Amino acid sequence: MSNNSDNVLIFYDIPSRCLGPWSPNTWKTRYALNFKNIPYKTIWVEYPDIEPTLKQLNIAPSMTKADGVTPHYTFPAIYDPVRKEGVTDSLAIAVWLDERYPDTPKLIPEGTLTFHKAFLAAFSSNIEAMRQFTFPKATWALNDRSEAYFRRTKEEWSGVTMEELYPEPGTEKRKVEWKKLEEELGRVAGWYGKDNAFVMGGEDNACFADFMVGGFIIWIRILFGKDSEEWKDVEKWHGGRLGRLIKALKKYE
Amino acid sequence: MSNNSDNVLIFYDIPSRCLGPWSPNTWKTRYALNFKNIPYKTIWVEYPDIEPTLKQLNIAPSMTKADGVTPHYTFPAIYDPVRKEGVTDSLAIAVWLDERYPDTPKLIPEGTLTFHKAFLAAFSSNIEAMRQFTFPKATWALNDRSEAYFRRTKEEWSGVTMEELYPEPGTEKRKVEWKKLEEELGRVAGWYGKDNAFVMGGEDNACFADFMVGGFIIWIRILFGKDSEEWKDVEKWHGGRLGRLIKALKKYE
Repeated sequence: MSNNSDNVLIFYDIPSRCLGPWSPNTWKTRYALNFKNIPYKTIWVEYPDIEPTLKQLNIAPSMTKADGVTPHYTFPAIYDPVRKEGVTDSLAIAVWLDERYPDTPKLIPEGTLTFHKAFLAAFSSNIEAMRQFTFPKATWALNDRSEAYFRRTKEEWSGVTMEELYPEPGTEKRKVEWKKLEEELGRVAGWYGKDNAFVMGGEDNACFADFMVGGFIIWIRILFGKDSEEWKDVEKWHGGRLGRLIKALKKYE
Repeated sequence: MSNNSDNVLIFYDIPSRCLGPWSPNTWKTRYALNFKNIPYKTIWVEYPDIEPTLKQLNIAPSMTKADGVTPHYTFPAIYDPVRKEGVTDSLAIAVWLDERYPDTPKLIPEGTLTFHKAFLAAFSSNIEAMRQFTFPKATWALNDRSEAYFRRTKEEWSGVTMEELYPEPGTEKRKVEWKKLEEELGRVAGWYGKDNAFVMGGEDNACFADFMVGGFIIWIRILFGKDSEEWKDVEKWHGGRLGRLIKALKKYE
């Protein structure tokens, strides 16, 4: 639940111009906090301010940049103003939340941390076709300072401009690449049991792996819009598997 | 336990000339059967006889060949001569064994089937550097009829002869590719908790994911030999993580 009183946990997120919360990785943590029903307040920080914000709070970076040496400061991050400690990286945050709030439902049920790490590796290798759609759409939706930062880093990654990267609607390339996305996500959908909304089963038994997938699937809904043809496609692909997941996660949005 | 009485479950495996059981995929099922302490007898079948054997038993193939259409008959397979039913593919066998033997320890603990499928995808994408070592070594260790079959299929896959594929000891290529294997397996090792031998924790709490990893790690020990430099490397890599796994699995060999 979002909360404005002092001393509640602080959740750091990145704003957009008009989409509301839009980042797939911070969505994982938003889902996690709401799932655990932990009071928090959201502070919105533009991309260029992430590193100074985390440094000031003394929150260690969770990874390095492509050179393997330079610390890479990323969101989501959370900060506990009472204990004066915080953590970044959505999986590390999930572990931290399970430890610090032992009376709330587990994000990583006993014995499943290794499975969660392997799940993240497997899922990450099946969202490659997604990036050409989502990186440009996100670039165009950010506030100016974040847009310049996001564009620069994603153009360094792709080697082309965001406008060149984006498969234009109506083109053959759009059709081919959209099909690739369907196939990649189909591999993810294939891991799920036929009758389960969630990774560990049922409709009411979410775990952090569901938020990993949910954060990236809801990204498509947010960037293209609830009523877009694109979202309608994703909702109905693979027997409605991914649409059902987002519906089952609605109570944690 | 291996057992010679009639009516016990039959476990189909592929022989080698002098290595004993050597196939990483059938090892997963051997570990699984021993873990569950189910009596079985092993029948050894050369590669060209796998398809006719499974057809005669009316066991459906678990996958298709590269063309996406032609059925691909593979081992491991198990067959229950009393119920007159069988199944192939090590993960499907694990599910089948959990269902048919409900009073034995679970291979796929409640709620972890999706995790197991994603684990298999993640693990499989981290054994790519292994194949150039293991496919040639296995080829050279098989009986003639299997050797010709295995060589043909693996050479079709790689586009070169097994002799060309194998990084010769003492060469720069050997060093580079062996290092790649260490790095790939290091990603797998990184998923594990520091103090756990097994995926779900502890030293006495194996699940089928441990047999997936174990089958491929023991492959290296079998192909190169217990006393080889190669096995000594694998045993000590990543803080001894993988060596510890094989040691913890010893009771199920």
